[in-house]
Amino acid sequence: MTERMPRPHAAGDGEVPVFLPDGVEAPAGLVEAALGYEAALMADDLESLAEYFAPGPDTLRGDEGGLLVGHDTITRFRGRRGGAPQRRIEALHVRPIDDDHAWLAAVTAPLGGGRGLVGQLWERRDGAWRISAAHVSAPPRAMDPRVWRVVGDPLLGPTGSGPLDGHTIAVKDVIAVEGFALGAGVPAYLAGAAPAPRSAPVLDALRAAGASVRGIAQTDQFAYSIAGRNAAYGTPPNPAVPGAISGGSSSGPASAVAMGHATIGLGTDTAGSIRIPASYQGLWGLRTTHGAISVDGVLPLAPSFDTVGWLTRDGETLAAVTRAAFERMPQQRVDAVRLATAALELPALDAPALVLAPALADSATPEVTRAFAAGLDALRSSGGRVDVLDDDALVAGALDELYEAFRTVQAAEAWAQHGSWITAHPGALGEDIAARFAWAASVTADAEAAARERLAVARTALDAALGDAVLVLPSAASVAPPVDAAGAEIEAIRAATLRITTVAGATGRPALSVPGLMAGGAPIGVCFVGPRGTDLGLVERAQEWATALKHG
Amino acid sequence: MTERMPRPHAAGDGEVPVFLPDGVEAPAGLVEAALGYEAALMADDLESLAEYFAPGPDTLRGDEGGLLVGHDTITRFRGRRGGAPQRRIEALHVRPIDDDHAWLAAVTAPLGGGRGLVGQLWERRDGAWRISAAHVSAPPRAMDPRVWRVVGDPLLGPTGSGPLDGHTIAVKDVIAVEGFALGAGVPAYLAGAAPAPRSAPVLDALRAAGASVRGIAQTDQFAYSIAGRNAAYGTPPNPAVPGAISGGSSSGPASAVAMGHATIGLGTDTAGSIRIPASYQGLWGLRTTHGAISVDGVLPLAPSFDTVGWLTRDGETLAAVTRAAFERMPQQRVDAVRLATAALELPALDAPALVLAPALADSATPEVTRAFAAGLDALRSSGGRVDVLDDDALVAGALDELYEAFRTVQAAEAWAQHGSWITAHPGALGEDIAARFAWAASVTADAEAAARERLAVARTALDAALGDAVLVLPSAASVAPPVDAAGAEIEAIRAATLRITTVAGATGRPALSVPGLMAGGAPIGVCFVGPRGTDLGLVERAQEWATALKHG
Repeated sequence: MTERMPRPHAAGDGEVPVFLPDGVEAPAGLVEAALGYEAALMADDLESLAEYFAPGPDTLRGDEGGLLVGHDTITRFRGRRGGAPQRRIEALHVRPIDDDHAWLAAVTAPLGGGRGLVGQLWERRDGAWRISAAHVSAPPRAMDPRVWRVVGDPLLGPTGSGPLDGHTIAVKDVIAVEGFALGAGVPAYLAGAAPAPRSAPVLDALRAAGASVRGIAQTDQFAYSIAGRNAAYGTPPNPAVPGAISGGSSSGPASAVAMGHATIGLGTDTAGSIRIPASYQGLWGLRTTHGAISVDGVLPLAPSFDTVGWLTRDGETLAAVTRAAFERMPQQRVDAVRLATAALELPALDAPALVLAPALADSATPEVTRAFAAGLDALRSSGGRVDVLDDDALVAGALDELYEAFRTVQAAEAWAQHGSWITAHPGALGEDIAARFAWAASVTADAEAAARERLAVARTALDAALGDAVLVLPSAASVAPPVDAAGAEIEAIRAATLRITTVAGATGRPALSVPGLMAGGAPIGVCFVGPRGTDLGLVERAQEWATALKHG
Repeated sequence: MTERMPRPHAAGDGEVPVFLPDGVEAPAGLVEAALGYEAALMADDLESLAEYFAPGPDTLRGDEGGLLVGHDTITRFRGRRGGAPQRRIEALHVRPIDDDHAWLAAVTAPLGGGRGLVGQLWERRDGAWRISAAHVSAPPRAMDPRVWRVVGDPLLGPTGSGPLDGHTIAVKDVIAVEGFALGAGVPAYLAGAAPAPRSAPVLDALRAAGASVRGIAQTDQFAYSIAGRNAAYGTPPNPAVPGAISGGSSSGPASAVAMGHATIGLGTDTAGSIRIPASYQGLWGLRTTHGAISVDGVLPLAPSFDTVGWLTRDGETLAAVTRAAFERMPQQRVDAVRLATAALELPALDAPALVLAPALADSATPEVTRAFAAGLDALRSSGGRVDVLDDDALVAGALDELYEAFRTVQAAEAWAQHGSWITAHPGALGEDIAARFAWAASVTADAEAAARERLAVARTALDAALGDAVLVLPSAASVAPPVDAAGAEIEAIRAATLRITTVAGATGRPALSVPGLMAGGAPIGVCFVGPRGTDLGLVERAQEWATALKHG
C-alpha cells in the first residue's frame, strides 16, 4: 500500500480520516466547510446546500444522470430529489491548489452498502468556502427499477441465428415474455398475473432472427399515457436531456435503448407511445401499420389503434428489425387494399412524395416549429420535394375534431378492456392514469358510436387527401418537458402532441420518428407517416432522410 | 435553457463544443491537451496516458469501482483494463482556476449508448498540462454481469411475512430458483439446463419469512474455487478494496450484498466459499453445520463437505436469517450426537470457551497475523477468555496432512459429480477450474480411500481436541489479492487459506466469519468455529465479539 497515513479529523460523533500530500496542510476552514456541507446534505437542508454552492450560471454538478450547469438548475434538482441517501465519509483526500482553491475527493460509505465517490472543487470567495464544481458517483445499483422490472445477461437467449445476432431486446411490460408474468406498469396487476406460457409471436420472430431478451422494461400504467411517469416505478431517465421525462408509454424500452442497455426496444404505439419517447430521447422509432404485425400476446389498450413497434439508436438496426419482423412472422390481413400477405410483397416506396400539412405543426412550441422548418429545408436541399398539402381533412378544425373522436373511441375501448379490473382494484393506479380511466368510464355508448362514425368519415377523407404520399410532421409538439413539470403542464403538452400523432393512429398508417433535429439543446424527431403496408419501404427510405436532417 | 453558447473547437474529424464562463478564455494549450488525452485514451495508448497524468503518489483517479491514489496505481489499473469504450465528447466545460490550473467537465457520448461524465483537474507543470485528479462516470449499466446473471425488482416476491420482511436475497447460481435454469457459472452448463420446477427448500424458508429474491448471482465455476475469478463472466467487484478480487466461490452473492444490491447472500461453502468472500469484503458470513440445512435443490460439489450458508452486511441480519432458516425448514439428522432435530432445541452457547491454535495462523501473511493478534487482544480486553489449545491434532504437520486428505476427498467427489459432464464438454471451463478438475480426475480410488481414512481419524482427533470450545482463527490467510495477481500467486494464497478453513470443512462444524479487522487498509475476518449444531448460538454470541473487535 502506498497510501500515506491519514490525519483524523473530528466530525460529528466520529472521525473522518483526512489524506493530504506529505508536508502539505489543508487551507484554513476547508475541511470544516466540507464536513458542514456533508452535514447539510445528510439533513437535506436545502437552504444551506444552496448556500454552499457558488452562485452564478457557471457552477457545475454532475452525476450518472448528467451534468447540471448553473446554480439555479442545481438548486432545482436538489429540491425535487427528496434528499440524498445516508452515508458516512470513509476517507477525505484534500488537494490544495492555491490559497483559495482546493480539490476534494471523498470516498463515501452509504448505509445501504457499496462505496460512492464525491469530487468537489472548492473556492474561497469573500472568506467563505463554496463548491464551484461537483461530481458525484453513487454506488452502482443492481438495476434501475425506473427502467426495468427484470433484466438478465440475457434473460432469454435467441432461438435462431440471423440478421439480429448479438442484438438485445428491452421488452415493454405489456408484451408477453415466456415464463414471466405481465405487469403493465401496475404492481397490483402484476401480483395477480401468472407466468406467460409463451412469448408474443413478434418477440419469437426477433429471437428467431438472432436477438436475445435483455429484460422486461417499464411502461406507463396500462400504456395509457405518453409521458413515461409511472407512479409506482418512477420516470425512466432521459440521457439525452438530463432532468427531462422519457416520454411514454414505451418509456422503459426507450430509455433502455438510449442508455445502451439494449439495442432494440420492443413496444406498442396506440396514440404515440413509440414516437414520443423516440422524439424525446433522440431515437429511431417505428409504429407499424395497424394490423400488420400480430398483437397476439400483447395486452390491449384500444384494439382499433393498438400496434406493435420498435425503437433503436440507429437506422440500420431499425431496418434490420423491421425486415426480421415482417419476414419472420405471418402477416395479418386487415386492410386488404394496401397490405400484402407476405412482407416481401409489401409495396416499396420508390419515389414517395413528401407532403406537409401546416396545421399539424400549429400546436407545437415555437422552438419545435423552428427546428422542424430547418428540417424541411434540409430535406429540400438534399434534393427532396416537400409539397404543401392543402386539404380540408388537414386543416386545424378537422384535426381538432379528429383528435376528439380518436380519444373518445380510445377511451371507450380502454375502459372496455380494463374497466372491470380497475373497478375491482381501487387505488391500484397512479393519480393521473386513474383520472384518465375515470374519464374513459364516463364516455357513453352514444358518444362512442358518434365518435366512431366521425372517425370513419375522417379516415376516408384523410386517405383521400394523403393517397400514396408520405406525410412529414414533427414527432411531438415539444421537446421532453422537465420531470418536475406540473401535471397540468404535462397534460397540455399531451393534448398538443396527440393532436399531431392522431393522423397515423386514426388511419392505421405506419409512422416513423427519425432523430437528427435539436430544439433548445434537446432532441426532437421528424415523423414520416406512409401509406398502410409500406413500413419496410418507409424505413429504408428514411436512411437518406436522416442523413439529410443530420447534415442539413 | 440558461446554457451559454458553446465555442466549437476542432477535434479530429469533428468539432467539440467548448463551454466557458462569459468573458473567460481557456488557458493556452489546455483544450488541446484535453483532446490529446482523449485521443490517447481512445487509442489505449498506455504510454501517453501515463504521461498525461501527473507523476507522484498524490494523483487521484476515481470511478464507480473506487478511488485510486498515486500515479503508479493508476497506471497499473489502466494496464489491466484493456482500453476504454469508444466515445465522443458531446460538451466540454472549461473552468479556469488560475494561470496553471483548470477544472474540466466533459459530457461523453459512448458509441454504445448513454451519456458519461468525466471531471479532470489539470495542472501546468514545467509548461506541460497534466491531470492531477480525475473522476469518471460511465453510463450506468443495465446490470453488472460479473455480479448477476438475472436480477429483478424483485425477481420473485416473498411467500409469507415475518422477520425477513423487506429483505432481498442474492441467490448463488448453484441453488435452484423456481422457473430459472441453474448455470453454476458455466455458460455451456446453463445452455443445457431446464428451468427448475421448484426452488431449493432453504430459499423457500427465507421467502416464507418475508424475503424476496433480488436475483441469481454469479459463482466460481461449479463452486470449485475460492477466488471469485470466473473466466466466462469476470470477477465481481470488491467495494471494500478497489482493484481486489471478491473471493469465492459465493462471489456474486457476496459482492451483491457488499454493494447494497441485496441484504442477504445465499451461498454454499464446501471449503471456504462463504467465509473467504466475507473476509475479503468485510461481511458477515456463516457456513452452517454440515447436514443441518437441507442441500436439496443445491448443485453438489463434494457432498461430504457441502453446506448452505449466508452473507450479510450486519450481524442482526445474519442472526435473523439464521433463525428463519433453522426455524422454518425441517432439520436433517446427520450428526446425531450434536444435532437436535428442531432448531429451537439447538444447543445454545451460554459461555463458550474460545480457543486458539497457533499453528492455524502459520500460513497467514504477516499483516493478517498482526491484525489477528490485535483482534485477540480486543476479545480478551472485552472480558473474554481465549485459551491456547495445545493438541497434536492442531500442530502444523497435522494441519498439512488434514488439508491434503480434505482436498483429495473433495476432488474425488467433485469429479464423481461433474466428471462426465466435463468430459463431454471440452473447453467449457476456464483454464484454472479445468486444471483443478483435471487434477481431480487423476485421484485414484486408492488415494481417495486412504484420504477418507485419514480424514476420519483426524476428525475424531479434532473433535476430541475441540470438544465444546469455539475455535477462533483468521478467516483467510491474506486480505483480498489484486485482480491482476498472477495465477501462481492466487494458487499459493488458495493453498494457504484452505489450510486454515479445512478444520470446519473436515469436522462439519459451523464457521462464522465476523468483520471488524483491517490489515493494510483491507478487511480481514475473524472466524469462529463452534460445535456442530450450535449455529444459532454462535451467531448470537458473535454480536458481542464483533463489538469487541470493532472497538478493540
